Amino acid sequence: MNKVNVKEKFRLFDQSWTPKILGELNRNYIKIFKAKGDFVWHQHKNEDEFFFVISGQLKIKLRDQEITLNEGEFFIVPKGVEHLPYADEEAHVLLFEPKQVLNTGDAISEKTVEKLEWL
Amino acid sequence: MNKVNVKEKFRLFDQSWTPKILGELNRNYIKIFKAKGDFVWHQHKNEDEFFFVISGQLKIKLRDQEITLNEGEFFIVPKGVEHLPYADEEAHVLLFEPKQVLNTGDAISEKTVEKLEWL
Repeated sequence: MNKVNVKEKFRLFDQSWTPKILGELNRNYIKIFKAKGDFVWHQHKNEDEFFFVISGQLKIKLRDQEITLNEGEFFIVPKGVEHLPYADEEAHVLLFEPKQVLNTGDAISEKTVEKLEWL
Repeated sequence: MNKVNVKEKFRLFDQSWTPKILGELNRNYIKIFKAKGDFVWHQHKNEDEFFFVISGQLKIKLRDQEITLNEGEFFIVPKGVEHLPYADEEAHVLLFEPKQVLNTGDAISEKTVEKLEWL
């Protein structure tokens, strides 16, 4: 039972698109990741996904629109909705999602991280 | 499917200890509340509770320790753990928790908010 300083945790890793776990509650994880460049088009069949920008700017392409999230803004991608997160400059993002969620959803690739690290 | 600016939402209400709903995912709510003064000792039998400070300082008394959360820090109160949140000056806090959680847990009082407003 310790408090967590989110910004400090971002200092502990560099790689983009590799979610790290900061906490667990009610079978969900609190995760963070660094975004830079393009991720991949994917969807999560059964889980909604919460993106909250801690710093920088994250963009999320959907098939019919694009969402631009600045610091302090969040967006919930509903289950089954294809999305492509990307960032022109490095952005820091907090996620809240069920434990079983795989970062690339249905699009298994070299960007898929099967086993997440706890920070 | 709209993005949400969390700080803007705090401008829409004044009252302390009245959680407002900003979003829903996977049978959880994203909520915010303003803290000022003491809340009440309570616990949630079946749900862990996530407190993330957006601005100001929130303190959480537990029976054997006290947690001080500054901006950008979070703490997860495990289910069944008695806690008393309080704030000397107004603090703005974001919560994630299952939809069925009642703000005062097992301690029904005049501070209990049965029906939460969406912002």
